Parts: sequence; structure tokens; C-alpha cells
Amino acid sequence: MKFVCSKSNLVSGLQIVSKAVPNKTTMSILECILIDATEGVIKFIANDMELGIQTEVEGNILERGFIAIDAKIFFDIIRKLPDNDVTVEADASRKVTISCEKAKFSIIGRNADDFTYLPSIEKIDGISVSQYTLKNVIQQTIFSIAENDTNKMMSGELFEINQDTLKLVSLDGHRISIRKVKLQNSYSPKKVVVPGKTLSDISKIITDSTENNVDIYFTDKHILFEFDKTIVVSRLLEGEYFNIDQMLSSDYETKMTISRREMIDCIDRATLLVKEGDKKPVIISISDEKMELKINSTIGSMDEEIDIEKQGKDIIIGFNPKFLLDALRAIEDESIDIYMVNPKAPCFIRDKDSTYIYLVLPINFTTVS
Amino acid sequence: MKFVCSKSNLVSGLQIVSKAVPNKTTMSILECILIDATEGVIKFIANDMELGIQTEVEGNILERGFIAIDAKIFFDIIRKLPDNDVTVEADASRKVTISCEKAKFSIIGRNADDFTYLPSIEKIDGISVSQYTLKNVIQQTIFSIAENDTNKMMSGELFEINQDTLKLVSLDGHRISIRKVKLQNSYSPKKVVVPGKTLSDISKIITDSTENNVDIYFTDKHILFEFDKTIVVSRLLEGEYFNIDQMLSSDYETKMTISRREMIDCIDRATLLVKEGDKKPVIISISDEKMELKINSTIGSMDEEIDIEKQGKDIIIGFNPKFLLDALRAIEDESIDIYMVNPKAPCFIRDKDSTYIYLVLPINFTTVS
Repeated sequence: MKFVCSKSNLVSGLQIVSKAVPNKTTMSILECILIDATEGVIKFIANDMELGIQTEVEGNILERGFIAIDAKIFFDIIRKLPDNDVTVEADASRKVTISCEKAKFSIIGRNADDFTYLPSIEKIDGISVSQYTLKNVIQQTIFSIAENDTNKMMSGELFEINQDTLKLVSLDGHRISIRKVKLQNSYSPKKVVVPGKTLSDISKIITDSTENNVDIYFTDKHILFEFDKTIVVSRLLEGEYFNIDQMLSSDYETKMTISRREMIDCIDRATLLVKEGDKKPVIISISDEKMELKINSTIGSMDEEIDIEKQGKDIIIGFNPKFLLDALRAIEDESIDIYMVNPKAPCFIRDKDSTYIYLVLPINFTTVS
Repeated sequence: MKFVCSKSNLVSGLQIVSKAVPNKTTMSILECILIDATEGVIKFIANDMELGIQTEVEGNILERGFIAIDAKIFFDIIRKLPDNDVTVEADASRKVTISCEKAKFSIIGRNADDFTYLPSIEKIDGISVSQYTLKNVIQQTIFSIAENDTNKMMSGELFEINQDTLKLVSLDGHRISIRKVKLQNSYSPKKVVVPGKTLSDISKIITDSTENNVDIYFTDKHILFEFDKTIVVSRLLEGEYFNIDQMLSSDYETKMTISRREMIDCIDRATLLVKEGDKKPVIISISDEKMELKINSTIGSMDEEIDIEKQGKDIIIGFNPKFLLDALRAIEDESIDIYMVNPKAPCFIRDKDSTYIYLVLPINFTTVS
């Protein structure tokens, strides 16, 4: 095998497939990428058995062939080369030579036969969404999955398609994040649970482009994302997702309209006084025209007022400040509405059309000083 | 005590004095800064007993007084405040109130009487050097001090003044870094050893200004740096520094002139193949017109050639790549001269006037493959 590529093309390709190379594994072949130049194109493939990524790299094939090669070492070498054309060559004894200008590296490749290709997925009945939109909805929901939980379903996100709506849901037992996106076409209904790691990786690989789309296909066990010259295949989480509809309600006793930025800054300041691991709530008192936020800890105390608009009853309610911050930071609107029932019922941050709903459970507090 | 300061002035002042607040200590008063507004100015002081820093902060004193306050908590609070005027007030019960716009923090201060002021140093017979120059010479030598060494003197740098020359020397047993700077005046000779941590902190506090100077004063036990509105006092390391003159020689058998940038990039690439902790040397073969660099490790091999000018004998010599890189990166000249005697004698990287000398010991190698 022998081909010539620009350094920058190699780096782009390696950045993409590296996401499917595990950091730690006992199977050393998983630490490799497969370079496949057996057909007219150069493909890089990585597969950790849960997630597989394949991408095409533009270049000039001089001799067809394929080789498996340690991903980290190969990427480290490529990154340090001068910005110029790079020649990659593998001989029959699997010696891989990487040369660029006057620098020449030799490393030993692995038998490509040991490498597992991506599962083959039939591309039918898929949906299409812009890269920008997919990246956004993932980032706006991924923070409320629960990692390392005994409940495996909490480590993934619900992907639900209903006609022309794509809905993403994540929850961790203390909060729920829901985002709805309008699709350009109408599709048959689908409901799958995608591992959080897959979504996190996808959101890092796709661009901010509103013009380039991601096509998404489904099977019983897999989800496939296709965009630009890249294919990502991931296993799905098997089982039934939580019935969230019964947790949502549109009744409220108090509605507050507040500047998102002011609320973020204020909670951010308050959390200074909370040591990590300390489950101290921030106490919010909502009355006409103002929200007062108070916190009292072993370090000191803080209080601050923010002007608001309020409908309904006054309320005093306590929250884990991190959960409020995560939700507020995931919203783009500058003025937001927060709906509350009582100090023990969940609060909802949502817009009029419910394109986003963030549910946060309050924390009990005994005394407010 | 009560004063008003802009947030940005407070942040600048805290950034400076924080360098003398230890990360870990059993004496909690050392984690505090002293805010001294007893005279017409607001002073922040921190003192970890080795290093003490005092700086003036511009602001408006409404009520004179002083208070000691936990440096980290105070800095964290100030940093998160809106960009506006901040009022700091301490009452008789040592309650400190920090308010800015609608945010109000309260924390408990410490008894200022427990705080140790900086040692008083008579400012006579000092030297003066621009902040830019001092910052540079420190950064260009500090990397070759030896930390945690049994030999305490290696953890500091020699500061030697001789007429109009300031010389800084650091060494760790494998290499020596020497920088000479011309001063604008001539001074009486001085020779002290300054702790590396002090120099590292100073280099972070002073600016890149070629117009603003640092005045440096000496006593038997202390060194004092004064610049802008800041005073830094550090203990000196007591004892005799190494006699480096006997290690320096101007004889050589091989002189090579090489592009610094090309040599850095080449060594940088080679070190990819060396695992951390692995004491693999890079082997350099110098012949007419070219330097060939080779490395062979369990990961793979690399070789690369660089065009050079050479005088004297051909030579094959091995080095710890990190030591070469550190020295090369500390030099600004684009074309540099490297002098060698034989594969077992130190090599010297130096300019014609010896304003810099970097000595690096070679590493024995058995076979070159």
C-alpha cells in the first residue's frame, strides 16, 4: 500500500476516527485504525465494538492495499510532521514508512485481518437534519444523562421521531431535559435510546454547518449517522425508555420571567460559597418584581436580588445550583419563563411552544436565615 | 475599615500577591492576605515566610483599618463579581462584607495581628534592570534548576553582579544555563543564590515592559525586588554556589552552525518515539553539510537530515532530547552555533559574545543502528 496525502487531510481524518479508539483496552487491535486503500479511496476506520467510525481522506493512491496501525502513534507522528505532503507506505512485512520532506518514520503495522469492519447497515427509511441542529440539540440535552448509573437507560438519550418532529430526552433522576426540533420532512415514528458517549462523540465530529446535513438510519440494534464523507455506527441501548409524559405537567402556581444572563451570574456567584460535594441548595424567594437568592454556608453568606416579572403566588424554593445552571446555559433565549407549583414539586423552564423543557426537582431546605 | 475599588484593580492586586499564598499549609493565617488601609493607601500583603509580596491597589478609602482574609475565597468572590465598583467593609467583629451592584457577600476575616509583615530591608546599593530583561533572563535559565534535589543549591539560581553585568546561572548536574545581561550602570560586585520559586513567581508578576524597571536590593539573607507599586521579598539560599568556571571551556573539535527552528522540529518529532521515563538518547551524526538525527525505540524508528555548516571533525554524539530542546527553545537567535569536543565531553551552545551559554552533557550510547 502506498499513498500521498496532505498533512492537514490526514489530521482531519484522524481527528474523526480517533473518537472510536478506546483509551484503555486489553485488545490491542482496538487501539489501531484500519487504513483501507484497496479501492479507489483512502478510508480510515476505527471500531471499539460499541462505536465504529469510517471516514474518507482525500489523497493519491500509488499502490492499493490496507494495513492496521496503532492510532495514537500514527496520529502523534502525523501531527508533528511539517505542513506538507506525506507519503504513507506499507510493505509486505507490515513495515509502515511515513515520510515528509526530510523526515522518515518507520513503525510496524498490525495484520488488517484482525480488524473488525463496521457492521453493515441498510440505508433505508432514514431522517435528515442539519449538522448545526443535531450538534445543538445534543449539547443542549447531554448534560443530564447519568453516567455510571446502575440504570443503564439513564446513560443514553431518547431519540424519538414523530412525523416532522425529532425529540431528544435525557434524565438522571433529578432532572429531565427535552428538546424538540422540526424536520423538513415527515417520517414514520421511531423511538430508540442512543448511548451518551456516541452522541457526545458525534457532536464533536460534526460541524456547525446549517447547510450540510446528517442522515440518520436505524435498525433494531444500531444507529448510523452519515455526513460529509464519514459514517458513524453505534449500538443502541436495548430496553424501554422512561415514560416521561406522566412527569410533565402544564399546571403552575407561580410563573416568573427573568433575564437568563442575570440569573446565571447570580447563581454562579452563590456557588462560590459551596464546597464541592456539599449538597447545599440555593434558596430562591420569589415575590412581586424581584427574585432574591440567598446562600449560607460554612464559608460565608451571600444574597442578591434580580428584577423579575411574576404571575401567581409568592414562593420560596431551594435548588441544586448546578442543575439550574446546566439548564440555563443550555437555553439561548435571553428572557426565560420558569414555572413552579410548590417547594416540593418540580419546576419547569420552557418556552411557549415547548421546543425546550427543562424539569428540575427542588431540594428540601429546613430554615432560611 | 471600608474602601471602594474597581473590580479590575482588585483582581490585578490579588493576582500579584496570590503568588505568596501557599497552596498547602498547616498554618491557616498563611492562607490569608492582609488588607492594610491604615494609611492613605490600600495595600495587599501575602507572606509564606519564604516569599513575601506587598502591592498597592488604587481605590478610595472611606474608613481606615485592616483585616486578614482568606486569599482564595476573597479572590474567588472578587473574580465572579460584575465589572463595577466593589465596596469592601470590615466591622469590629471581623465580619467582611463585599458588595457590588445588587450582590452582597459576607465572610469572616481573621485577626490581622496574627499576620507577619514583610521583613524590613534597607534599600541601599541596589541595581536596576528593565522588567522585560529580567523576565526574559529568568525564563531563559529557570528550566535547568533541579527541584527536590538533595542538593539545595541546585534549586536556586546564581545572581552575580560584576560592574555593569548581571549573570544568571542554573544547573542540575546534567546541564548548565548561563545568561549575561548588560546593566546601564556599574555596581559593586555581588553574588547571591535566589530560590527558583521566587524567580518563577517574579517572572509571572512583572510585565514585558522595556520602560519600567525592577530595582533589586540585597542583604545577607534576603533579596528585594521593587517595581510598579509592588515589593517582593524573598529569602536567599545560604551557602556557596558551584564553581562553574572550571566546567566551561572554549576548546572544541567540531563546530556546527544550524537553523534553530529546524533542529527543534526535528528533535521534537524524534521524541515521539520515546516513552516518558525511557532514557533513550537521540543520536546525532555530524558530517560536512549535514546533521543526521536518528532514533530507534520499541515503538519504531525515525531519521531525518538537516543542512548545516560545519568546521572541524565529524562526530557522532548522543543527547537527552529534552535537554537539547530546553536550551534551543530558550535562545532567540535563528542560526546557532554548537561546539563539541568528543562524544563524552559536554557540548556548548553559545553566541559569539557568550551572552548565552548552554552546556549539555552527552549520553553514552552503545550501537547506532
